[in-house]
Amino acid sequence: MGGFLSASSRRTVLAAAAATVLLGRRAWAQASDPLVSWNDGAAKQAILDFVARVSRESGPDFVKPAERIAVFDNDGTLWAEQPVYFQVQFAFDRIKALAPQHADWKEKQPFKAVLEGDARALAATGEKGLLEIMAVTHAGMTTEDFAKSVADWLATARHPRFNRPYSELIYQPMLELRAYLHANAFKTFIVSGGGVEFMRVFAERVYGVPPEQVVGSSGVVKFQMGADGKPTLIKEAKVEFIDDGPGKPVGINRFIGRRPILAFGNSDGDHQMLQYTAAGPGARFMGLVHHTDAEREYAYDRQSHIGKLDKALDEAIARKWTVVDMKKDWRTVFPAPR
Amino acid sequence: MGGFLSASSRRTVLAAAAATVLLGRRAWAQASDPLVSWNDGAAKQAILDFVARVSRESGPDFVKPAERIAVFDNDGTLWAEQPVYFQVQFAFDRIKALAPQHADWKEKQPFKAVLEGDARALAATGEKGLLEIMAVTHAGMTTEDFAKSVADWLATARHPRFNRPYSELIYQPMLELRAYLHANAFKTFIVSGGGVEFMRVFAERVYGVPPEQVVGSSGVVKFQMGADGKPTLIKEAKVEFIDDGPGKPVGINRFIGRRPILAFGNSDGDHQMLQYTAAGPGARFMGLVHHTDAEREYAYDRQSHIGKLDKALDEAIARKWTVVDMKKDWRTVFPAPR
Repeated sequence: MGGFLSASSRRTVLAAAAATVLLGRRAWAQASDPLVSWNDGAAKQAILDFVARVSRESGPDFVKPAERIAVFDNDGTLWAEQPVYFQVQFAFDRIKALAPQHADWKEKQPFKAVLEGDARALAATGEKGLLEIMAVTHAGMTTEDFAKSVADWLATARHPRFNRPYSELIYQPMLELRAYLHANAFKTFIVSGGGVEFMRVFAERVYGVPPEQVVGSSGVVKFQMGADGKPTLIKEAKVEFIDDGPGKPVGINRFIGRRPILAFGNSDGDHQMLQYTAAGPGARFMGLVHHTDAEREYAYDRQSHIGKLDKALDEAIARKWTVVDMKKDWRTVFPAPR
Repeated sequence: MGGFLSASSRRTVLAAAAATVLLGRRAWAQASDPLVSWNDGAAKQAILDFVARVSRESGPDFVKPAERIAVFDNDGTLWAEQPVYFQVQFAFDRIKALAPQHADWKEKQPFKAVLEGDARALAATGEKGLLEIMAVTHAGMTTEDFAKSVADWLATARHPRFNRPYSELIYQPMLELRAYLHANAFKTFIVSGGGVEFMRVFAERVYGVPPEQVVGSSGVVKFQMGADGKPTLIKEAKVEFIDDGPGKPVGINRFIGRRPILAFGNSDGDHQMLQYTAAGPGARFMGLVHHTDAEREYAYDRQSHIGKLDKALDEAIARKWTVVDMKKDWRTVFPAPR
């Protein structure tokens, strides 16, 4: 004892031993590795390097904390999106829940197709059919009543393959990434093609993202003063803004008002958001989740109807953006069931 | 010495003396009174009481920090709005700056009227004239170029009566109120009829409000990919959203996604925002700045064209909302010149 290690090395070893005992092994591993669910590799290293570069106050790539804005797509980037977008599944389930009050739906499209689970007949109703479904499930009610219908659905519905609540089919590595960014003074936003009022119901509880940091598509909302003198906000069956594709940089400009330095997506719907992020000055991080894991989740990209990843993948490869290979790069996909 | 004061009293007195010496008298007064520019009275007391109630963890009116959302109108509430809205003055000054590149404006309305300072001729061009002025000063350029034109104007233009930069004609008592709210874990937003891209240029520097906490009116913005592969956002001459009157609760719902517990305005354009805030559960604070001080600022309310305060004043009186009498309640109006 003594002399073999320097005094400072002894202190380090003792501190590590004490931390292991006090925190437990798993917690200690987490404390020392903020991205434990990421396997070592180029993607993980690129994240660690980028955050270190923009945080180093004396370095050439330092970014003031107020400007460390990070944006994340939701469907396919923070939670799963197969076999159908979860919000569309919500709409279908809602049609079924409302059907007893609408006897005519049994014989009326597109409702008949939804009630009978007839995908071909539903597809035949086209965009008009989808808008009708959205109108009865997402409009004609107060913002509060809509939020309640989403909360009720999340509390009871289960994913057909994983038999888990939809809000548990979130990506553990992305939770860790966002926590790591927060620990380094980043402010993170969701920027999604999904409905903003839909996402806000669970974003705070599930992701820790407050409502004011959720950007999404929206329908028109009208202020209405009730006869009782109580004002309400009514959701109307009219599209106001589609936060997808070229709409994403527009939504970022409108809601956030500054260009992100980090953006993460998974599909061509995120392409312009990544281009817009890449075009700013200084250090930048552009990331894509590539769904390559049919066993633990799903494998899809260029040919997929949902979450098609084609042009954005080409540009990511050409410009050396970070492409996360789900199968190789993620040790864990979903959090362990509670 | 000794025995006259208890040990703890002696420590308090010594600490106060030391603080006075170290901080200077004014700073010490500020440390002990977060609202030094407010005279004692019902308005100041109502603010202090409200913040204490929602912050007391064991009390019946406790509000979780994440839900302590406070919204402030801008024109007439955080900065002055007379003799014309500052953003309109910006547009007029911009017309003058652009005139050398537009020889035809000398003979063409509404530009001729602006260049000649002919208010009557300008008024005669009506809403169409105003939209034309907005189109050439607020559209047909990138969001960055617009922000630069605003920054240039703020750096050089001076208010005709006070001969100070417009960004110095902000209300010192409201700066203190917002700082006091922040110290008590509130998150504050600007919710204004003014243009969101206009306000974001100075809101962070002048008020300490980051761009993502500014809600305002907006024009359509389009994503455009340049031939050089560089994406830009172009402002178009098309109104997208008017964040005024019934639009304010809609804007709050869209951008913030939760109902505020405190709202401050100064005109009928803030009426619905105050009603919406008042209609939520639990403790609420609704405030109006009443411009009663012709000597230090301006005196106007029910008959004013700009910042008309009529119906909202009636409801504030009837429902015992807080009406700030600028002349009586504010010790200071504007910050001392730097």
